[in-house]
Amino acid sequence: MNFLDCFSRYDIILASQSPRRKALMEAAGIPFRTMVRPTPEHFHDGMPPVEVVSLLCREKADCFPDELKEPDVVLITADTIVVHDGQIINKPADAAHAFRMLSTLSGSTHEVYTGVCIRHRDKEILFHDHSCVSFCRLDDEEIRHYIEQYAPYDKAGAYGIQEWIGYIGITGIRGSYHNVMGLPVHKVYQALKELLCE
Amino acid sequence: MNFLDCFSRYDIILASQSPRRKALMEAAGIPFRTMVRPTPEHFHDGMPPVEVVSLLCREKADCFPDELKEPDVVLITADTIVVHDGQIINKPADAAHAFRMLSTLSGSTHEVYTGVCIRHRDKEILFHDHSCVSFCRLDDEEIRHYIEQYAPYDKAGAYGIQEWIGYIGITGIRGSYHNVMGLPVHKVYQALKELLCE
Repeated sequence: MNFLDCFSRYDIILASQSPRRKALMEAAGIPFRTMVRPTPEHFHDGMPPVEVVSLLCREKADCFPDELKEPDVVLITADTIVVHDGQIINKPADAAHAFRMLSTLSGSTHEVYTGVCIRHRDKEILFHDHSCVSFCRLDDEEIRHYIEQYAPYDKAGAYGIQEWIGYIGITGIRGSYHNVMGLPVHKVYQALKELLCE
Repeated sequence: MNFLDCFSRYDIILASQSPRRKALMEAAGIPFRTMVRPTPEHFHDGMPPVEVVSLLCREKADCFPDELKEPDVVLITADTIVVHDGQIINKPADAAHAFRMLSTLSGSTHEVYTGVCIRHRDKEILFHDHSCVSFCRLDDEEIRHYIEQYAPYDKAGAYGIQEWIGYIGITGIRGSYHNVMGLPVHKVYQALKELLCE
């Protein structure tokens, strides 16, 4: 497979600690290693979602100046946010917070934005993806069961679409399923093809 | 969890040999066993997709008359078809056929219909789900790589959305991702709740 062979000539770094992003890159057959560095996550209230994710993934990329001096390094950073009724929903602080978040998402449609920044030598490719996710009406009991069993404290919006609640509670999406998981991996693959193989 | 406890009081039979449907039922936490029996798969040309999947899942259910005499048995059957440009696309006969199918789906949007029939005592619940799937333009090399590595001969449309090609080649869907995999499991879960727990 020429594209995958071509990718393997580079040192592709996924700068993320998300196990979902890692799994998506592996499933797409893209060879990579991960590297994690603490990054600031501040943004201005009222900033449009696309600007927020673009800013945050660029700020994450800025934390790897030394790695980017290496000519074979390709750095990938990403940031995902959940937006409901125009409000950005972050990660829940505790079980009560997660319960309130999921009660809000229940029976309605929200949006998921992921920004991706790919840097290689002096080039930068910046893009985003956008999906809509519709939840059916969830019972309090179902929400409590999910929070107890899955502890979704590392997830924006307090849920993972690839977990139990995504199987029983999501009626449909519009856009990329993998974007909802945290990385529009089809766009990453296409961008790497254009950047590295042509 | 009361619903899942409630389900476990019944003998739920999934009459399907699809490993994807099995995985979806497991992920939703629904207790079940599988039972497979050869079933006829004939339908009339030109029949609308919803009628085709409804007819086929009912025909599958008709093959289990003795099991349905048991008062605790709940039988679930399903049938999935892929429709492109108004034509039903079946399973590919060989690699050349799979290549032609995927070349047709490349760069366009197709539809996936799944019919589900649930029977319990004298009751039948029949429903379907419908999703649209958009492929980006796939290179011949990517199609050949996928067919060689994944041998998608048991899959309508010659692809599995949960396999490599679904990660690199699908730009988005509209509707349920799990329906595309072969079972709208959120609807199965809701139907079982209504049928068995209320």
